[in-house]
Amino acid sequence: MADVAGNNFDIVILGGGSGGYACALRAVQLGKTVALIEKSKVGGTCLHWGCIPTKALLHSAEVADLAREGSMFGVQSTFEGIDMAQVNKYKDGVIDRLYKGLQGLIKSGGITVVEGEGKLVDTKTVEVNGERYTGTNVVLATGSVSRTLGLEIGGRVVTSTEALSMTEVPEKVVIIGGSVIGVEFASVWKSFGADVTIIEGLPTLVPLEDPVLSKGLERAFRKRKINFKTGVKFDSVKQTESGVTVTLENGDTIETDLVLVAVGRGPNSAGMGFEEAGITVDRGWVPTNERLATNVEGVFAVGDLVPGLQLAHRGFAHGIFVAEEIAGLNPQPVIDSGIPRVTYCEPEIASVGITEPQAREKYGDENVETVEYNLGGNGKSQILATAGTVKLVREKDGPIVGVHMIGSRFGEQVGEASLMVNWEAYPEDVAQFIHAHPTQNEALGEAALALAGKPLHSHA
Amino acid sequence: MADVAGNNFDIVILGGGSGGYACALRAVQLGKTVALIEKSKVGGTCLHWGCIPTKALLHSAEVADLAREGSMFGVQSTFEGIDMAQVNKYKDGVIDRLYKGLQGLIKSGGITVVEGEGKLVDTKTVEVNGERYTGTNVVLATGSVSRTLGLEIGGRVVTSTEALSMTEVPEKVVIIGGSVIGVEFASVWKSFGADVTIIEGLPTLVPLEDPVLSKGLERAFRKRKINFKTGVKFDSVKQTESGVTVTLENGDTIETDLVLVAVGRGPNSAGMGFEEAGITVDRGWVPTNERLATNVEGVFAVGDLVPGLQLAHRGFAHGIFVAEEIAGLNPQPVIDSGIPRVTYCEPEIASVGITEPQAREKYGDENVETVEYNLGGNGKSQILATAGTVKLVREKDGPIVGVHMIGSRFGEQVGEASLMVNWEAYPEDVAQFIHAHPTQNEALGEAALALAGKPLHSHA
Repeated sequence: MADVAGNNFDIVILGGGSGGYACALRAVQLGKTVALIEKSKVGGTCLHWGCIPTKALLHSAEVADLAREGSMFGVQSTFEGIDMAQVNKYKDGVIDRLYKGLQGLIKSGGITVVEGEGKLVDTKTVEVNGERYTGTNVVLATGSVSRTLGLEIGGRVVTSTEALSMTEVPEKVVIIGGSVIGVEFASVWKSFGADVTIIEGLPTLVPLEDPVLSKGLERAFRKRKINFKTGVKFDSVKQTESGVTVTLENGDTIETDLVLVAVGRGPNSAGMGFEEAGITVDRGWVPTNERLATNVEGVFAVGDLVPGLQLAHRGFAHGIFVAEEIAGLNPQPVIDSGIPRVTYCEPEIASVGITEPQAREKYGDENVETVEYNLGGNGKSQILATAGTVKLVREKDGPIVGVHMIGSRFGEQVGEASLMVNWEAYPEDVAQFIHAHPTQNEALGEAALALAGKPLHSHA
Repeated sequence: MADVAGNNFDIVILGGGSGGYACALRAVQLGKTVALIEKSKVGGTCLHWGCIPTKALLHSAEVADLAREGSMFGVQSTFEGIDMAQVNKYKDGVIDRLYKGLQGLIKSGGITVVEGEGKLVDTKTVEVNGERYTGTNVVLATGSVSRTLGLEIGGRVVTSTEALSMTEVPEKVVIIGGSVIGVEFASVWKSFGADVTIIEGLPTLVPLEDPVLSKGLERAFRKRKINFKTGVKFDSVKQTESGVTVTLENGDTIETDLVLVAVGRGPNSAGMGFEEAGITVDRGWVPTNERLATNVEGVFAVGDLVPGLQLAHRGFAHGIFVAEEIAGLNPQPVIDSGIPRVTYCEPEIASVGITEPQAREKYGDENVETVEYNLGGNGKSQILATAGTVKLVREKDGPIVGVHMIGSRFGEQVGEASLMVNWEAYPEDVAQFIHAHPTQNEALGEAALALAGKPLHSHA
């Protein structure tokens, strides 16, 4: 590590979430001096109020479901309820362990962590609590915040942040938004015993996914008696003494105990001096070129602040990229279309690459081939009692360009799917490799075999 | 499908298990006529008395463990016991559904299934119930049977076959053999509430795996209070009125209620006329060249009958290979070292490629690099409350030649691991691809990053 002269660093990073801390860790590996400025906790949204706590709740939900369904598997178990205090203790325990680990990595890397709200005062300087930190390069990594569509958050109207620290399971909950955050909380609360209704303005749940996944999730949610209304927007949300009334644009009203506003996340950049320093800001986002450079020399942006997929692992990759870019390693750009996506509701959804409609648009209808492998033929999925599908999309006589999966635990299959798409594998390439039996993983092999014209356990 | 003239077929397959039926299904796709001879049930050991039923028991075991541990996750659940009748009903239900599916595939493929015990009467002819079936090619696919080391099976001394149909959970059980079958049953019975002791003659549990997996499993089993004695052979097993006495070679004795003999599986070929027909048989196995041809022109062997890994998916691959070979497609040989291996105990073990000792032997000590990624840094594994390791073995400055993993649910990661090894990927190749957060899958990405010299969430 080079010497730090006063408050001068090779890199000053504004924001210690996934993008910021990954950049810091990689930069110090490459011999750079780094100041990492974070107003709250290093680890950011993902670790403290996002990915990690939601997945802990989802595991509690899985445990609850299995306890309820034990007799199906010959296990004499009962489910008597959810102890939210204990759920929160478990969840916070996971966060604490990972947070300690992360703090250890940051400390042993020799990163200077500055606690406080940072503001850009010029293109090389961030001011925190009256003190100035100067970097040869500055990385903007301020992340995102929940969108609220003008709704006042408080009381019985919450965003995901508040929803992660509930002290009780609501009896009835309305979730505005049927994308990732919405369907994950719907899944948790249903498993915890709540009556759940999702309102989604677009025609389907998880509308950005391939239609086979939207249909599959809707089917599964119907079976789980999770209510949803798609293609309809909400008009108003009014808190009363005893509850909340949600009025839809079609005039319907729903009385409920809690409303979760899960309409996506917007950029977190207001009042941070970006525009004043000459950085182009577009409706709060900081646009970059594919090398994550802003319009100002020496200033980069990473993670959710940069328009595109909002995913912690995109943030990690952005951060690593920028550290390597600054160190002159000329890294490969991070391309959104190759980034794997997982939605951890029950059943899980995972995808990478493009959807069938996108492929038809790109290559023409006659140049797209697909296969849908039904998990009815997959032994391990039968053992887990899950239904679902693995869908492969290929360019005709060309590589696999999209993998789309739904089924319990299928998020974990996205690693092989990602290698297929990113290595531009042909189904024939994948089909020649043996998949372990009886795994859920072999469904990917079966799908590849079928798409290569030599199905094994596939029904026509 | 070509016409079948009398009992003359393009291919006569002796044995309808994984290797045999896969061969049959692929052969009819390629226009061949096929007779598939099976003395019991199509699907064979794997579907009816092996992989599928054990994995069903293991899932019941997982459900039992989670019901017991619910409070840790904030779920008010109780575990009151195991209802073996219901366990068996669940397990048989899974088998039945898959069996029906398989029968459907076989029927719609136009395969002639012959029920009965077949015997080779010459190199082109199999006799079943007095009737003869002649094939231009013959495929031997008679599989394997449990080894018993001379022990008499019956009463309280069982093999895996009997262990799959228990009507009660034993109070105390001794398992002779600490390889795949032994540790899977140990895992099931412990979760079901039994007191379990494994006896393994070699120095470690799962002795064929990389040492990191043996050590990891022993640590996990100790924590689960599964007893095991390694490096000691049994001397005798004596049934008494009230139990069984197992005497070890060191003189120790163990009184128990049940003994599972899980010392591996041997070839199933006795009395089938192979040697009489001129086929080379080696201690019951049928050796082949890498194109699965026996010493007799036109006679092939597949699956467990062929010396090497005993895995259903190897059987599938063998069967498909032989069908394509006979059809003149010149397929790529099936190489054992590229076949993924999963042991489904809790925690699960998965591996592909060679172990570190094998790599040191092959490349020399100075030409092997490894990394062990501890799941303590893997968020999803922390959420599942599992400990474990992902170990990568590479040739120095060369490709990844082995992946070795232990941790709850890690069997499902073997798909990406297999692509890495079989595509001869460098850690640097894998490190550039983004792994989804927070999945268990990202542990593979973290391990690759660390081995590529750019660790992210890795502690030194």
